[in-house]
Amino acid sequence: MSIPRFFCFKEDIKKEFITLKKEDRNHIVKSLRLGIGDAIDVSDRIDTIYKTKISSVSPKEISLEIIEKRKFSPKKIKITLFQSLLKGQRMDDLIKKTTELGVEEIIPVFTSRTIKKYNERGLKNKLARWKKISLEASMQSHRDKPSDVKNPIYFDNLIDTAEKFDIFILTWRGEKKRRISDIKFNMGISKIGYIIGPEGGFSPDEASLLISKGAISVSLGKNILRSETAAVAVMAILSDKLNF
Amino acid sequence: MSIPRFFCFKEDIKKEFITLKKEDRNHIVKSLRLGIGDAIDVSDRIDTIYKTKISSVSPKEISLEIIEKRKFSPKKIKITLFQSLLKGQRMDDLIKKTTELGVEEIIPVFTSRTIKKYNERGLKNKLARWKKISLEASMQSHRDKPSDVKNPIYFDNLIDTAEKFDIFILTWRGEKKRRISDIKFNMGISKIGYIIGPEGGFSPDEASLLISKGAISVSLGKNILRSETAAVAVMAILSDKLNF
Repeated sequence: MSIPRFFCFKEDIKKEFITLKKEDRNHIVKSLRLGIGDAIDVSDRIDTIYKTKISSVSPKEISLEIIEKRKFSPKKIKITLFQSLLKGQRMDDLIKKTTELGVEEIIPVFTSRTIKKYNERGLKNKLARWKKISLEASMQSHRDKPSDVKNPIYFDNLIDTAEKFDIFILTWRGEKKRRISDIKFNMGISKIGYIIGPEGGFSPDEASLLISKGAISVSLGKNILRSETAAVAVMAILSDKLNF
Repeated sequence: MSIPRFFCFKEDIKKEFITLKKEDRNHIVKSLRLGIGDAIDVSDRIDTIYKTKISSVSPKEISLEIIEKRKFSPKKIKITLFQSLLKGQRMDDLIKKTTELGVEEIIPVFTSRTIKKYNERGLKNKLARWKKISLEASMQSHRDKPSDVKNPIYFDNLIDTAEKFDIFILTWRGEKKRRISDIKFNMGISKIGYIIGPEGGFSPDEASLLISKGAISVSLGKNILRSETAAVAVMAILSDKLNF
Protein backbone atom coordinates (compact mmCIF):
# COMPACT_ATOMS: atom_id res chain seq x y z
CA MET A 1 0.00 0.00 0.00
CA SER A 2 1.22 3.47 -0.75
CA ILE A 3 1.93 5.96 2.03
CA PRO A 4 -1.13 8.06 2.92
CA ARG A 5 -0.97 11.71 1.97
CA PHE A 6 -2.26 14.66 4.01
CA PHE A 7 -2.21 18.43 3.58
CA CYS A 8 -1.11 21.00 6.15
CA PHE A 9 -0.59 24.77 6.29
CA LYS A 10 2.78 26.45 6.83
CA GLU A 11 1.77 27.32 10.40
CA ASP A 12 1.31 23.62 11.23
CA ILE A 13 5.06 23.10 10.69
CA LYS A 14 7.35 23.86 13.67
CA LYS A 15 11.00 22.93 13.23
CA GLU A 16 11.10 19.16 12.78
CA PHE A 17 7.46 18.50 13.53
CA ILE A 18 4.08 18.86 11.85
CA THR A 19 0.89 18.92 13.91
CA LEU A 20 -2.38 17.78 12.37
CA LYS A 21 -5.65 18.49 14.14
CA LYS A 22 -8.93 16.77 14.94
CA GLU A 23 -10.24 15.59 11.60
CA ASP A 24 -6.91 14.47 10.14
CA ARG A 25 -5.93 13.01 13.50
CA ASN A 26 -9.09 10.90 13.55
CA HIS A 27 -8.68 9.88 9.95
CA ILE A 28 -5.13 8.65 10.63
CA VAL A 29 -5.87 6.92 13.93
CA LYS A 30 -9.39 5.62 13.43
CA SER A 31 -9.87 5.06 9.70
CA LEU A 32 -6.32 4.20 8.67
CA ARG A 33 -5.52 2.63 12.07
CA LEU A 34 -1.98 3.95 12.05
CA GLY A 35 0.14 4.53 15.17
CA ILE A 36 3.54 5.66 16.43
CA GLY A 37 6.29 5.13 13.87
CA ASP A 38 4.00 4.74 10.85
CA ALA A 39 4.78 6.80 7.75
CA ILE A 40 2.67 9.73 6.50
CA ASP A 41 3.41 12.14 3.64
CA VAL A 42 2.32 15.73 4.16
CA SER A 43 2.15 18.44 1.51
CA ASP A 44 2.30 22.09 2.59
CA ARG A 45 0.10 22.89 -0.44
CA ILE A 46 2.78 25.24 -1.79
CA ASP A 47 6.00 23.54 -2.85
CA THR A 48 7.12 20.86 -0.38
CA ILE A 49 6.17 17.28 0.49
CA TYR A 50 7.34 16.16 3.93
CA LYS A 51 8.00 12.49 4.59
CA THR A 52 7.13 11.97 8.25
CA LYS A 53 6.64 9.37 10.95
CA ILE A 54 3.96 9.54 13.62
CA SER A 55 5.70 10.61 16.84
CA SER A 56 2.81 11.10 19.25
CA VAL A 57 -0.98 11.01 19.36
CA SER A 58 -3.18 12.94 21.77
CA PRO A 59 -7.00 13.05 21.85
CA LYS A 60 -7.08 16.28 19.83
CA GLU A 61 -4.05 16.16 17.58
CA ILE A 62 -1.30 14.07 16.09
CA SER A 63 2.37 14.98 15.90
CA LEU A 64 4.50 13.93 12.93
CA GLU A 65 8.28 13.98 12.86
CA ILE A 66 9.78 15.20 9.59
CA ILE A 67 12.22 12.66 8.14
CA GLU A 68 12.81 14.13 4.70
CA LYS A 69 11.68 17.02 2.49
CA ARG A 70 11.03 16.95 -1.24
CA LYS A 71 10.28 20.02 -3.31
CA PHE A 72 7.64 19.77 -6.01
CA SER A 73 7.11 22.12 -8.90
CA PRO A 74 3.70 23.74 -8.95
CA LYS A 75 1.86 22.96 -12.20
CA LYS A 76 2.72 25.37 -15.02
CA ILE A 77 -0.78 25.15 -16.41
CA LYS A 78 -3.79 25.56 -14.18
CA ILE A 79 -7.22 24.37 -15.21
CA THR A 80 -10.42 25.87 -13.86
CA LEU A 81 -13.74 24.11 -14.35
CA PHE A 82 -16.83 26.32 -14.46
CA GLN A 83 -19.65 23.91 -13.77
CA SER A 84 -23.35 24.60 -13.97
CA LEU A 85 -24.73 23.37 -10.62
CA LEU A 86 -26.15 19.87 -10.76
CA LYS A 87 -28.39 18.10 -8.33
CA GLY A 88 -27.28 15.61 -5.70
CA GLN A 89 -24.62 12.98 -6.19
CA ARG A 90 -23.73 14.16 -9.66
CA MET A 91 -21.90 17.25 -8.43
CA ASP A 92 -20.03 15.19 -5.83
CA ASP A 93 -19.05 12.68 -8.46
CA LEU A 94 -17.60 15.18 -10.89
CA ILE A 95 -15.70 16.99 -8.14
CA LYS A 96 -14.05 13.71 -7.17
CA LYS A 97 -13.11 12.66 -10.67
CA THR A 98 -11.92 16.04 -12.01
CA THR A 99 -9.85 16.43 -8.83
CA GLU A 100 -8.17 13.08 -9.45
CA LEU A 101 -7.46 14.19 -13.01
CA GLY A 102 -5.76 17.38 -11.85
CA VAL A 103 -8.28 20.24 -12.00
CA GLU A 104 -7.00 23.29 -10.08
CA GLU A 105 -10.34 24.72 -9.02
CA ILE A 106 -14.03 24.24 -9.64
CA ILE A 107 -16.37 27.21 -9.73
CA PRO A 108 -20.08 26.33 -9.66
CA VAL A 109 -22.12 28.54 -12.01
CA PHE A 110 -25.80 29.43 -12.18
CA THR A 111 -26.73 29.57 -15.86
CA SER A 112 -30.18 30.44 -17.18
CA ARG A 113 -31.12 26.76 -17.43
CA THR A 114 -29.50 25.65 -14.18
CA ILE A 115 -32.05 24.04 -11.90
CA LYS A 116 -31.71 26.18 -8.79
CA LYS A 117 -32.86 24.48 -5.69
CA TYR A 118 -30.68 26.02 -3.03
CA ASN A 119 -31.46 28.71 -0.52
CA GLU A 120 -28.49 30.61 0.92
CA ARG A 121 -28.02 28.28 3.84
CA GLY A 122 -28.40 25.16 1.73
CA LEU A 123 -25.79 26.47 -0.65
CA LYS A 124 -23.37 27.24 2.18
CA ASN A 125 -23.69 23.67 3.45
CA LYS A 126 -23.25 22.30 -0.05
CA LEU A 127 -20.12 24.34 -0.60
CA ALA A 128 -18.58 23.07 2.65
CA ARG A 129 -19.40 19.53 1.55
CA TRP A 130 -17.90 20.05 -1.93
CA LYS A 131 -14.71 21.49 -0.44
CA LYS A 132 -14.40 18.45 1.78
CA ILE A 133 -14.93 16.10 -1.17
CA SER A 134 -12.26 17.85 -3.23
CA LEU A 135 -9.78 17.78 -0.33
CA GLU A 136 -10.38 14.09 0.29
CA ALA A 137 -10.08 13.23 -3.39
CA SER A 138 -6.84 15.26 -3.46
CA MET A 139 -5.48 13.17 -0.60
CA GLN A 140 -6.55 9.88 -2.13
CA SER A 141 -5.11 10.70 -5.53
CA HIS A 142 -1.86 11.93 -3.94
CA ARG A 143 -1.94 15.36 -5.48
CA ASP A 144 0.89 17.71 -4.56
CA LYS A 145 -1.59 20.50 -4.03
CA PRO A 146 -5.29 20.03 -3.34
CA SER A 147 -7.99 21.26 -5.69
CA ASP A 148 -10.59 23.65 -4.34
CA VAL A 149 -14.26 24.42 -4.93
CA LYS A 150 -14.97 28.15 -4.93
CA ASN A 151 -18.08 30.19 -4.24
CA PRO A 152 -20.76 29.80 -6.90
CA ILE A 153 -21.16 32.68 -9.36
CA TYR A 154 -23.83 33.81 -11.77
CA PHE A 155 -23.29 33.48 -15.50
CA ASP A 156 -23.31 37.27 -15.87
CA ASN A 157 -20.31 37.56 -13.57
CA LEU A 158 -18.53 34.83 -15.46
CA ILE A 159 -18.10 36.90 -18.58
CA ASP A 160 -15.37 39.16 -17.22
CA THR A 161 -13.67 36.20 -15.58
CA ALA A 162 -13.55 34.25 -18.83
CA GLU A 163 -11.42 36.92 -20.47
CA LYS A 164 -8.64 36.34 -17.93
CA PHE A 165 -7.89 32.87 -19.29
CA ASP A 166 -5.36 32.10 -22.02
CA ILE A 167 -7.76 29.50 -23.38
CA PHE A 168 -11.41 29.28 -22.44
CA ILE A 169 -13.26 26.23 -23.72
CA LEU A 170 -17.02 26.13 -24.12
CA THR A 171 -18.49 22.65 -24.53
CA TRP A 172 -21.55 23.27 -26.61
CA ARG A 173 -23.92 21.12 -28.62
CA GLY A 174 -24.23 23.93 -31.16
CA GLU A 175 -20.61 23.30 -32.17
CA LYS A 176 -20.60 20.44 -34.65
CA LYS A 177 -17.03 20.28 -35.80
CA ARG A 178 -14.20 21.45 -33.59
CA ARG A 179 -12.91 18.89 -31.09
CA ILE A 180 -10.54 19.55 -28.21
CA SER A 181 -7.84 17.78 -30.21
CA ASP A 182 -8.14 20.58 -32.80
CA ILE A 183 -7.15 23.27 -30.30
CA LYS A 184 -3.51 24.40 -30.37
CA PHE A 185 -2.05 24.65 -26.88
CA ASN A 186 0.96 26.89 -27.35
CA MET A 187 3.93 26.98 -25.02
CA GLY A 188 3.57 29.65 -22.42
CA ILE A 189 -0.12 29.35 -21.71
CA SER A 190 -0.78 29.08 -18.01
CA LYS A 191 -4.50 29.44 -17.43
CA ILE A 192 -7.11 27.25 -19.07
CA GLY A 193 -10.79 27.49 -18.23
CA TYR A 194 -13.62 25.31 -19.42
CA ILE A 195 -17.31 25.53 -18.84
CA ILE A 196 -19.89 22.74 -18.73
CA GLY A 197 -23.55 23.61 -19.07
CA PRO A 198 -26.58 22.19 -17.30
CA GLU A 199 -28.52 19.19 -18.61
CA GLY A 200 -30.50 21.46 -20.96
CA GLY A 201 -27.32 23.08 -22.31
CA PHE A 202 -26.51 26.77 -22.57
CA SER A 203 -29.06 29.14 -24.02
CA PRO A 204 -28.03 30.38 -27.51
CA ASP A 205 -27.52 33.84 -25.95
CA GLU A 206 -25.13 32.52 -23.36
CA ALA A 207 -23.13 30.59 -25.92
CA SER A 208 -22.88 33.55 -28.34
CA LEU A 209 -21.87 35.88 -25.56
CA LEU A 210 -19.04 33.62 -24.44
CA ILE A 211 -17.87 33.07 -28.01
CA SER A 212 -17.89 36.85 -28.61
CA LYS A 213 -15.59 37.14 -25.59
CA GLY A 214 -13.10 34.70 -27.10
CA ALA A 215 -14.33 31.35 -25.79
CA ILE A 216 -13.55 28.41 -28.09
CA SER A 217 -16.60 26.23 -28.65
CA VAL A 218 -15.98 22.49 -28.91
CA SER A 219 -18.00 19.38 -29.59
CA LEU A 220 -17.59 16.29 -27.45
CA GLY A 221 -18.98 14.13 -30.23
CA LYS A 222 -22.31 13.02 -31.57
CA ASN A 223 -23.59 11.31 -28.43
CA ILE A 224 -25.45 13.34 -25.82
CA LEU A 225 -23.32 13.37 -22.69
CA ARG A 226 -24.63 13.98 -19.23
CA SER A 227 -23.23 17.15 -17.74
CA GLU A 228 -21.00 15.33 -15.21
CA THR A 229 -19.64 12.99 -17.88
CA ALA A 230 -18.69 15.99 -20.03
CA ALA A 231 -16.91 17.64 -17.08
CA VAL A 232 -14.80 14.54 -16.48
CA ALA A 233 -14.21 13.86 -20.18
CA VAL A 234 -12.78 17.32 -20.88
CA MET A 235 -10.49 17.15 -17.85
CA ALA A 236 -9.26 13.70 -18.96
CA ILE A 237 -8.53 14.91 -22.48
CA LEU A 238 -6.70 18.01 -21.22
CA SER A 239 -4.65 16.03 -18.69
CA ASP A 240 -3.50 13.67 -21.43
CA LYS A 241 -2.72 16.51 -23.82
CA LEU A 242 -0.88 18.64 -21.27
CA ASN A 243 0.94 15.72 -19.66
CA PHE A 244 -0.51 16.22 -16.18
CA MET B 1 -36.40 18.59 -25.67
CA SER B 2 -34.86 16.14 -28.05
CA ILE B 3 -36.85 13.19 -29.36
CA PRO B 4 -36.47 10.08 -27.16
CA ARG B 5 -34.52 7.22 -28.64
CA PHE B 6 -35.28 3.52 -28.32
CA PHE B 7 -33.77 0.32 -29.70
CA CYS B 8 -35.59 -2.51 -31.43
CA PHE B 9 -34.68 -5.75 -33.21
CA LYS B 10 -35.34 -6.41 -36.90
CA GLU B 11 -38.21 -8.75 -35.98
CA ASP B 12 -40.03 -5.88 -34.22
CA ILE B 13 -40.37 -4.10 -37.58
CA LYS B 14 -43.35 -5.12 -39.74
CA LYS B 15 -43.91 -3.05 -42.88
CA GLU B 16 -44.64 0.49 -41.72
CA PHE B 17 -44.85 -0.28 -38.02
CA ILE B 18 -42.53 -1.04 -35.12
CA THR B 19 -43.83 -2.77 -32.00
CA LEU B 20 -42.14 -2.22 -28.66
CA LYS B 21 -42.95 -4.46 -25.71
CA LYS B 22 -43.61 -4.17 -22.01
CA GLU B 23 -40.60 -2.35 -20.61
CA ASP B 24 -40.19 0.15 -23.45
CA ARG B 25 -43.96 0.56 -23.59
CA ASN B 26 -44.05 1.47 -19.90
CA HIS B 27 -41.08 3.76 -20.20
CA ILE B 28 -42.74 5.68 -23.04
CA VAL B 29 -46.21 5.86 -21.50
CA LYS B 30 -45.47 6.12 -17.79
CA SER B 31 -42.06 7.78 -17.43
CA LEU B 32 -42.02 9.97 -20.53
CA ARG B 33 -45.82 10.40 -20.47
CA LEU B 34 -46.09 10.30 -24.24
CA GLY B 35 -49.21 9.37 -26.20
CA ILE B 36 -50.70 8.94 -29.67
CA GLY B 37 -48.96 11.13 -32.24
CA ASP B 38 -45.82 11.83 -30.19
CA ALA B 39 -42.46 11.32 -31.88
CA ILE B 40 -40.02 8.51 -31.03
CA ASP B 41 -36.77 7.58 -32.76
CA VAL B 42 -35.97 3.88 -32.95
CA SER B 43 -32.65 2.33 -33.94
CA ASP B 44 -32.58 -1.22 -35.27
CA ARG B 45 -29.09 -1.57 -33.72
CA ILE B 46 -27.64 -2.37 -37.14
CA ASP B 47 -27.75 0.47 -39.62
CA THR B 48 -31.09 2.34 -39.56
CA ILE B 49 -32.79 4.94 -37.37
CA TYR B 50 -36.56 5.10 -37.82
CA LYS B 51 -38.40 8.32 -37.11
CA THR B 52 -41.81 7.25 -35.84
CA LYS B 53 -45.02 8.48 -34.27
CA ILE B 54 -46.97 6.59 -31.63
CA SER B 55 -49.98 5.06 -33.39
CA SER B 56 -51.54 2.91 -30.66
CA VAL B 57 -50.96 1.80 -27.10
CA SER B 58 -52.21 -1.43 -25.53
CA PRO B 59 -51.54 -2.70 -21.99
CA LYS B 60 -48.66 -4.88 -23.19
CA GLU B 61 -47.17 -3.08 -26.15
CA ILE B 62 -46.93 0.11 -28.11
CA SER B 63 -47.16 0.49 -31.86
CA LEU B 64 -45.12 3.10 -33.71
CA GLU B 65 -45.74 4.21 -37.27
CA ILE B 66 -42.59 4.72 -39.34
CA ILE B 67 -42.45 8.22 -40.86
CA GLU B 68 -38.91 8.27 -42.17
CA LYS B 69 -35.77 6.13 -42.28
CA ARG B 70 -32.18 7.29 -41.94
CA LYS B 71 -29.17 5.05 -42.46
CA PHE B 72 -26.24 5.42 -40.11
CA SER B 73 -22.73 4.16 -40.64
CA PRO B 74 -21.56 1.73 -38.01
CA LYS B 75 -18.42 2.98 -36.27
CA LYS B 76 -15.22 2.07 -38.13
CA ILE B 77 -13.33 1.68 -34.88
CA LYS B 78 -14.73 -0.37 -32.04
CA ILE B 79 -13.47 0.02 -28.50
CA THR B 80 -13.69 -2.73 -25.91
CA LEU B 81 -13.14 -2.00 -22.24
CA PHE B 82 -11.79 -4.86 -20.13
CA GLN B 83 -12.63 -3.80 -16.61
CA SER B 84 -11.56 -5.47 -13.40
CA LEU B 85 -14.79 -5.97 -11.43
CA LEU B 86 -15.45 -3.22 -8.90
CA LYS B 87 -17.84 -3.18 -6.01
CA GLY B 88 -21.27 -1.53 -5.96
CA GLN B 89 -22.10 1.77 -7.59
CA ARG B 90 -18.66 2.20 -9.11
CA MET B 91 -19.22 -0.43 -11.78
CA ASP B 92 -22.63 1.07 -12.61
CA ASP B 93 -21.10 4.52 -12.87
CA LEU B 94 -18.35 3.56 -15.29
CA ILE B 95 -20.72 1.57 -17.47
CA LYS B 96 -22.94 4.65 -17.81
CA LYS B 97 -20.14 7.08 -18.59
CA THR B 98 -18.11 4.90 -20.97
CA THR B 99 -21.35 4.07 -22.80
CA GLU B 100 -22.10 7.77 -23.27
CA LEU B 101 -18.56 8.23 -24.56
CA GLY B 102 -19.00 5.51 -27.18
CA VAL B 103 -17.54 2.27 -25.82
CA GLU B 104 -18.64 -0.73 -27.93
CA GLU B 105 -18.58 -3.38 -25.23
CA ILE B 106 -17.46 -3.84 -21.66
CA ILE B 107 -16.04 -7.15 -20.51
CA PRO B 108 -15.67 -7.52 -16.73
CA VAL B 109 -12.44 -9.28 -15.76
CA PHE B 110 -11.32 -11.13 -12.65
CA THR B 111 -7.66 -10.26 -12.10
CA SER B 112 -5.51 -11.62 -9.26
CA ARG B 113 -6.23 -8.56 -7.14
CA THR B 114 -9.90 -8.20 -8.02
CA ILE B 115 -12.03 -8.33 -4.92
CA LYS B 116 -14.37 -11.20 -5.74
CA LYS B 117 -17.57 -11.10 -3.83
CA TYR B 118 -19.99 -12.73 -6.20
CA ASN B 119 -21.40 -16.20 -6.21
CA GLU B 120 -22.70 -17.52 -9.52
CA ARG B 121 -26.24 -16.31 -8.95
CA GLY B 122 -25.13 -12.91 -7.67
CA LEU B 123 -22.99 -12.47 -10.75
CA LYS B 124 -25.85 -13.42 -13.06
CA ASN B 125 -28.06 -10.78 -11.43
CA LYS B 126 -25.30 -8.21 -11.64
CA LEU B 127 -24.75 -8.89 -15.31
CA ALA B 128 -28.44 -8.44 -16.06
CA ARG B 129 -28.34 -5.15 -14.16
CA TRP B 130 -25.22 -3.95 -16.00
CA LYS B 131 -26.76 -4.80 -19.37
CA LYS B 132 -29.81 -2.77 -18.45
CA ILE B 133 -27.68 0.19 -17.36
CA SER B 134 -25.71 0.14 -20.62
CA LEU B 135 -28.89 -0.05 -22.68
CA GLU B 136 -30.50 2.85 -20.80
CA ALA B 137 -27.36 4.97 -21.07
CA SER B 138 -27.28 4.16 -24.80
CA MET B 139 -30.84 5.45 -25.13
CA GLN B 140 -30.20 8.59 -23.11
CA SER B 141 -27.04 9.46 -25.00
CA HIS B 142 -28.77 8.79 -28.36
CA ARG B 143 -26.27 6.26 -29.58
CA ASP B 144 -26.96 4.72 -32.96
CA LYS B 145 -26.13 1.30 -31.58
CA PRO B 146 -26.24 0.36 -27.89
CA SER B 147 -23.17 -0.74 -25.97
CA ASP B 148 -23.21 -4.11 -24.29
CA VAL B 149 -21.77 -5.69 -21.16
CA LYS B 150 -20.50 -9.21 -21.78
CA ASN B 151 -19.96 -12.21 -19.53
CA PRO B 152 -17.07 -11.75 -17.08
CA ILE B 153 -13.85 -13.58 -17.91
CA TYR B 154 -10.75 -14.57 -15.98
CA PHE B 155 -7.48 -12.81 -16.65
CA ASP B 156 -5.97 -16.06 -17.99
CA ASN B 157 -8.60 -16.20 -20.71
CA LEU B 158 -7.99 -12.58 -21.57
CA ILE B 159 -4.52 -13.20 -22.91
CA ASP B 160 -5.62 -14.87 -26.15
CA THR B 161 -8.37 -12.29 -26.60
CA ALA B 162 -5.94 -9.39 -26.27
CA GLU B 163 -4.00 -10.57 -29.33
CA LYS B 164 -7.06 -10.11 -31.53
CA PHE B 165 -7.00 -6.32 -31.13
CA ASP B 166 -5.14 -3.93 -33.44
CA ILE B 167 -4.19 -1.88 -30.39
CA PHE B 168 -4.45 -3.10 -26.83
CA ILE B 169 -3.82 -0.51 -24.13
CA LEU B 170 -2.77 -1.41 -20.61
CA THR B 171 -3.17 1.38 -18.06
CA TRP B 172 -0.46 0.61 -15.58
CA ARG B 173 1.22 2.52 -12.77
CA GLY B 174 4.50 0.78 -13.67
CA GLU B 175 4.57 2.81 -16.90
CA LYS B 176 6.00 6.22 -16.09
CA LYS B 177 6.36 7.83 -19.47
CA ARG B 178 4.13 6.87 -22.35
CA ARG B 179 0.78 8.66 -22.48
CA ILE B 180 -2.16 7.80 -24.71
CA SER B 181 -1.33 10.89 -26.78
CA ASP B 182 1.99 9.20 -27.67
CA ILE B 183 0.28 6.24 -29.33
CA LYS B 184 -0.01 6.35 -33.12
CA PHE B 185 -3.46 5.37 -34.31
CA ASN B 186 -2.90 4.43 -37.94
CA MET B 187 -5.61 4.45 -40.57
CA GLY B 188 -7.16 1.06 -40.97
CA ILE B 189 -7.22 -0.02 -37.35
CA SER B 190 -10.64 -1.25 -36.37
CA LYS B 191 -10.37 -2.90 -32.98
CA ILE B 192 -9.02 -1.18 -29.89
CA GLY B 193 -9.05 -2.78 -26.46
CA TYR B 194 -8.06 -1.30 -23.14
CA ILE B 195 -7.84 -2.79 -19.72
CA ILE B 196 -8.32 -1.13 -16.35
CA GLY B 197 -7.05 -2.88 -13.25
CA PRO B 198 -8.56 -3.15 -9.80
CA GLU B 199 -7.87 -0.62 -7.03
CA GLY B 200 -4.63 -2.41 -6.15
CA GLY B 201 -3.48 -2.44 -9.77
CA PHE B 202 -2.27 -5.37 -11.85
CA SER B 203 0.28 -7.75 -10.40
CA PRO B 204 3.71 -7.34 -12.06
CA ASP B 205 3.22 -10.79 -13.61
CA GLU B 206 -0.07 -9.78 -15.18
CA ALA B 207 1.38 -6.58 -16.59
CA SER B 208 4.50 -8.31 -18.02
CA LEU B 209 2.40 -11.04 -19.57
CA LEU B 210 0.14 -8.55 -21.34
CA ILE B 211 3.10 -6.48 -22.54
CA SER B 212 4.81 -9.64 -23.86
CA LYS B 213 1.64 -10.25 -25.89
CA GLY B 214 1.85 -6.81 -27.46
CA ALA B 215 -0.15 -4.65 -25.06
CA ILE B 216 0.97 -1.01 -24.95
CA SER B 217 1.41 0.20 -21.38
CA VAL B 218 0.41 3.80 -20.70
CA SER B 219 0.48 6.18 -17.77
CA LEU B 220 -2.53 8.31 -16.92
CA GLY B 221 -0.33 10.79 -15.06
CA LYS B 222 1.23 11.23 -11.66
CA ASN B 223 -2.00 11.29 -9.66
CA ILE B 224 -3.47 8.03 -8.44
CA LEU B 225 -6.79 7.53 -10.20
CA ARG B 226 -9.58 5.39 -8.91
CA SER B 227 -10.29 2.49 -11.21
CA GLU B 228 -13.61 3.91 -12.47
CA THR B 229 -12.08 7.32 -13.14
CA ALA B 230 -9.35 5.68 -15.22
CA ALA B 231 -11.94 3.73 -17.23
CA VAL B 232 -13.84 6.92 -18.09
CA ALA B 233 -10.69 8.98 -18.70
CA VAL B 234 -9.26 6.57 -21.28
CA MET B 235 -12.58 6.37 -23.12
CA ALA B 236 -12.80 10.19 -23.17
CA ILE B 237 -9.28 10.55 -24.55
CA LEU B 238 -9.88 7.91 -27.22
CA SER B 239 -13.22 9.41 -28.25
CA ASP B 240 -11.58 12.81 -28.73
CA LYS B 241 -8.64 11.33 -30.63
CA LEU B 242 -10.74 9.12 -32.88
CA ASN B 243 -13.47 11.69 -33.45
CA PHE B 244 -16.29 9.61 -32.00
